[in-house]
Amino acid sequence: MNAAIIGASGYSGEELVRLLSRHPNVQLAAVTSRSLAGQKVADVMPALRHAVGDLEFTSSDPVELAQRDDLDVFFLALPHGVASEFASPLYKAGKTVIDLSADFRLNSTSTYENYYGHPHPAPELLKAAPYVIPELADDSWKEATLIACPGCYPTSVQVPLIPLLKAGLIKPSGIVINSYSGVSGAGRKVAEDFIYCERNESMKAYGLPKHRHLSEIEEQLEKAAFADCLVQFNPHLAPMARGISTTIVAKSNKASIESIYSTWQKTYKGKPFISILPSGTYPDTKHVTGSNRADISAVYDPRTDNFVITSVIDNLLKGASGQAVQILNLKSGFEETAGLI
Amino acid sequence: MNAAIIGASGYSGEELVRLLSRHPNVQLAAVTSRSLAGQKVADVMPALRHAVGDLEFTSSDPVELAQRDDLDVFFLALPHGVASEFASPLYKAGKTVIDLSADFRLNSTSTYENYYGHPHPAPELLKAAPYVIPELADDSWKEATLIACPGCYPTSVQVPLIPLLKAGLIKPSGIVINSYSGVSGAGRKVAEDFIYCERNESMKAYGLPKHRHLSEIEEQLEKAAFADCLVQFNPHLAPMARGISTTIVAKSNKASIESIYSTWQKTYKGKPFISILPSGTYPDTKHVTGSNRADISAVYDPRTDNFVITSVIDNLLKGASGQAVQILNLKSGFEETAGLI
Amino acid sequence: MNAAIIGASGYSGEELVRLLSRHPNVQLAAVTSRSLAGQKVADVMPALRHAVGDLEFTSSDPVELAQRDDLDVFFLALPHGVASEFASPLYKAGKTVIDLSADFRLNSTSTYENYYGHPHPAPELLKAAPYVIPELADDSWKEATLIACPGCYPTSVQVPLIPLLKAGLIKPSGIVINSYSGVSGAGRKVAEDFIYCERNESMKAYGLPKHRHLSEIEEQLEKAAFADCLVQFNPHLAPMARGISTTIVAKSNKASIESIYSTWQKTYKGKPFISILPSGTYPDTKHVTGSNRADISAVYDPRTDNFVITSVIDNLLKGASGQAVQILNLKSGFEETAGLI
Amino acid sequence: MNAAIIGASGYSGEELVRLLSRHPNVQLAAVTSRSLAGQKVADVMPALRHAVGDLEFTSSDPVELAQRDDLDVFFLALPHGVASEFASPLYKAGKTVIDLSADFRLNSTSTYENYYGHPHPAPELLKAAPYVIPELADDSWKEATLIACPGCYPTSVQVPLIPLLKAGLIKPSGIVINSYSGVSGAGRKVAEDFIYCERNESMKAYGLPKHRHLSEIEEQLEKAAFADCLVQFNPHLAPMARGISTTIVAKSNKASIESIYSTWQKTYKGKPFISILPSGTYPDTKHVTGSNRADISAVYDPRTDNFVITSVIDNLLKGASGQAVQILNLKSGFEETAGLI
Repeated sequence: MNAAIIGASGYSGEELVRLLSRHPNVQLAAVTSRSLAGQKVADVMPALRHAVGDLEFTSSDPVELAQRDDLDVFFLALPHGVASEFASPLYKAGKTVIDLSADFRLNSTSTYENYYGHPHPAPELLKAAPYVIPELADDSWKEATLIACPGCYPTSVQVPLIPLLKAGLIKPSGIVINSYSGVSGAGRKVAEDFIYCERNESMKAYGLPKHRHLSEIEEQLEKAAFADCLVQFNPHLAPMARGISTTIVAKSNKASIESIYSTWQKTYKGKPFISILPSGTYPDTKHVTGSNRADISAVYDPRTDNFVITSVIDNLLKGASGQAVQILNLKSGFEETAGLI
Repeated sequence: MNAAIIGASGYSGEELVRLLSRHPNVQLAAVTSRSLAGQKVADVMPALRHAVGDLEFTSSDPVELAQRDDLDVFFLALPHGVASEFASPLYKAGKTVIDLSADFRLNSTSTYENYYGHPHPAPELLKAAPYVIPELADDSWKEATLIACPGCYPTSVQVPLIPLLKAGLIKPSGIVINSYSGVSGAGRKVAEDFIYCERNESMKAYGLPKHRHLSEIEEQLEKAAFADCLVQFNPHLAPMARGISTTIVAKSNKASIESIYSTWQKTYKGKPFISILPSGTYPDTKHVTGSNRADISAVYDPRTDNFVITSVIDNLLKGASGQAVQILNLKSGFEETAGLI
Repeated sequence: MNAAIIGASGYSGEELVRLLSRHPNVQLAAVTSRSLAGQKVADVMPALRHAVGDLEFTSSDPVELAQRDDLDVFFLALPHGVASEFASPLYKAGKTVIDLSADFRLNSTSTYENYYGHPHPAPELLKAAPYVIPELADDSWKEATLIACPGCYPTSVQVPLIPLLKAGLIKPSGIVINSYSGVSGAGRKVAEDFIYCERNESMKAYGLPKHRHLSEIEEQLEKAAFADCLVQFNPHLAPMARGISTTIVAKSNKASIESIYSTWQKTYKGKPFISILPSGTYPDTKHVTGSNRADISAVYDPRTDNFVITSVIDNLLKGASGQAVQILNLKSGFEETAGLI
Repeated sequence: MNAAIIGASGYSGEELVRLLSRHPNVQLAAVTSRSLAGQKVADVMPALRHAVGDLEFTSSDPVELAQRDDLDVFFLALPHGVASEFASPLYKAGKTVIDLSADFRLNSTSTYENYYGHPHPAPELLKAAPYVIPELADDSWKEATLIACPGCYPTSVQVPLIPLLKAGLIKPSGIVINSYSGVSGAGRKVAEDFIYCERNESMKAYGLPKHRHLSEIEEQLEKAAFADCLVQFNPHLAPMARGISTTIVAKSNKASIESIYSTWQKTYKGKPFISILPSGTYPDTKHVTGSNRADISAVYDPRTDNFVITSVIDNLLKGASGQAVQILNLKSGFEETAGLI
């Protein structure tokens, strides 16, 4: 199987290159970037010097790419809005498209417009594109050829919450989510706020109270809960390169901590990338950095009747590129962990 | 005025040495530590080599210290439980005692026993010891000679919340607080969990759901609100040496964001160590590291009818030693900022 | 092939577990640690939860291990002195032993005693144990069944220097080496000097002027140069978890920068784990963290007639566990990069 | 005394604002920046919110500033080349000018042109401008009204070396210097190489073999040694915000380690900002961060007949703004430590 990465100049793109260049079942056949075309991948991503040989960035347009017979699967690591420009012709040409942007994550075009500030660029494709956290989606998504990869914060939220909402163990209203992301979450952005001396030893909130990922979180939680969910979602920047730490407060719906754990265990039995930690121990971003794993745990507070749930992921792996490769693996019938361990 | 620091071996003690050694109105006359007695302060705290001359740690017992005529004010930088052993004789001898431990922070001995696991060591002194965040306490505390300095997390919570609860702008129930502390919050503790390679690039929750500071937070919030407060308080470790970042979600009590800001402005007018940032900008721990300042701001979320309030302090300064010196300044009639800018 | 890791409680041990648990040709069959026996590897090394299944630490004695038919190759991740206790019976039982300690790195027992403070514990084995940087050793080492893995600093020094000394391009005398290591170089040591608040944002020299690795460096450089080498070697701690950055000043022996590069290119042609960067670009520890690569480059200074050579490695991979697995791969006829990319 | 800071937009400028806003003998009367004119200092430097009141950046031209009667002393925190444009008219108007740029550090205009790539912009002023490390310069500099502040790396080199060269204890030839600087050494530069995810956990050399500071180092060492000095100077970036760690290898000139220490002790007796650490202990950047101190120590290596000398400073304080204020203090007859402790 020959894969192409479209728009590989950022940190997610680099992780895709890393993962696909060592994948046992995939050949990384093309890496494109308008700004880097003609440059060697090894020069732009010096950490991958030993892995990428003489591979060069190419600058291809969507139509041309759609016509190439030698490329089977396309990973889109592009900004929202731009991804659609590629997804449409590729999808129509029958290619497999795994999109890491926000373009196909929402079902509702009005929510998209509300949060992204412009009309949805390809509404006709929304129905075709399932939203896939592999451990949570039902298997029908594997038939799709256009797949929406979830955002990083939303993955850290849904892995612990979706099973609990489906089982009715927590109340869908009043959920409070605080998330702390490593600086790579902002991409390879060159701005004063992201230089070392500003972010080092520094922690702060941003984008309150209506971060774009909120739309995706609420839409998915509502689908699981069959009820309205109004979530308070507070993203922050943390002084580290990678990792997301998420802490969720949710009202118990007359449920015990044991029922939380048994529901998780049932949902995630045999899933290699979900670790359920005992109540009273706490997920640590350091333990998932560089892996495609999500670690989760919960405690019950009898004083408040709340569950406090914590989760961690590597924002670039389970939160982006790792999950995208996991999706390819499952869709293609490869080992779920191929190229990911 | 001659000051002594009792139990100066930790990071708070070191900050007290730093602040008092350059204080224009205070002479740092004694620094004690059972474990370090006889050692030069300059050797134990090499960052202060230029500031402490030949000062040596001494090992004194409480009774002996209480009898020394040459010492006027005592800062207790001791573990809870131990502080009382010093506070009692010093208080009875008429000395001024500024206690940084938890021993005199709570009014309720049963709450103390519930959270600290043993009976209160000096219940007879509790009434004598006001709990003082100088910007929030009424002036009567200046008559006291035994003063309880608030904890670091509680300071970051009370500075933004107390005025709002007093004014009835937020609901006292259902408050959710997430706090992230630099590693110095754990003190100079030598344990595997605190070595560089474990904490660097690592973020995680701890001590859920009943951290000791919760007792202090709730007692103070209830006093301000004249109502029960059941708070969900989630402390975390962040990969930085210093600083606390606190994010609070509180239900609006039919209040506007303007009323939040006008209440803060009234409360903190002329207070040099409180900065109120415009709604939509966010306090950053980096901006308060090394200062005695608290920065606060808030946004209103019309979707959820919540206020999201963020605050930052330096846990060792406004969260401990800086506030203790500010207390001394105000009690003694010095400039509030003396030695603190 | 079944592998055992002996003494796996430290950071090098953890990297060995990581590498061998995903190695395509090796089964990780046993992991021993006196202090951790009976504990699950997944609990002690939470970063590897997804990779190690139910594997448990066992506590085995050398003699017992030597008799086990189900174990073929042993990685010794033990302190110097202790490694010999295991190496002797295992070697005599015909097992393959790859030793990461310092016990078999030096040829000279008197140098060992001089630097390590006690007589060599197994001098009779020294001749049997080749010292192997795979890119530099001649192929005869592959016959050996006891192999000494080089130290981390020495690897970062020898990769650039050995070919130049062999070719006579630099003078063997007067070499000055400055090396800066991430804190993991000190192992999982729990001491005040290694807690986060002491090492974060901190850089300092240590162990001047006679670090133990100096003995290994000089012995190897002298062998390459056929001449005496008196090296000034200055190790430092840098505020990062992993990585070594080494900067070497060496007098030109009437050589040009072109000859330096052509010698390197000849030596390292086809070697997947050595990257030679153009003169005027600089190796960066970040680019090798997590990989088994060494990056090297050099400039010539016509003012001083010196070459200034810089190299970087990941101290736990090319500086320890990665190189050990590379050695196993080459000895066993596996792909050199198996399990390492 | 009324002070102005010209070009205060960078990190050195910010440190000057911090120091002068709390200086007991100086009024910070003006802060200029072409790019920031009209903005509040408190908004641009949020860490100083509590210290700067309503002070605003102004945009003034050199001639206009020279005519202002209300300004006595000018700190130039400008790029080289630009500083001269201000220094000339201010100097001619009889103002005191303390220049932190490189413009007046070198005596030789040809060296300046060689290292900075253009002719010296104000050669007629060179003689008027002494180069001042206060602990090393003789008192005649205090008469000057235009003073050149040394660079950060050169300060870390000269403090330990100048006394030894003057006393003839080390050989002036063959000195090798490795320096590691925190990222603030590059200023508030917004470039991909300086964003958090590139510099965090990363160490690398740069600018080999002819960094601009080399010219300043050699000129000063030669003046002290009365001999040619060809220095190998290797600057590096270290993953920390502040601090310089310098390690120097110098040949003994038949001197003992005792003579090194007694020379240092004689030179630096009574100097509050120089700490001489015992041989065998090592200066640590963490211990000088935030202070104007330089810490130095040395060991002798009998194997190589070299001294290995290490020093640390805060690049923004003793390496820039702190030293500039120290210079003002001494010139003006204030306490040497005024505003600096």
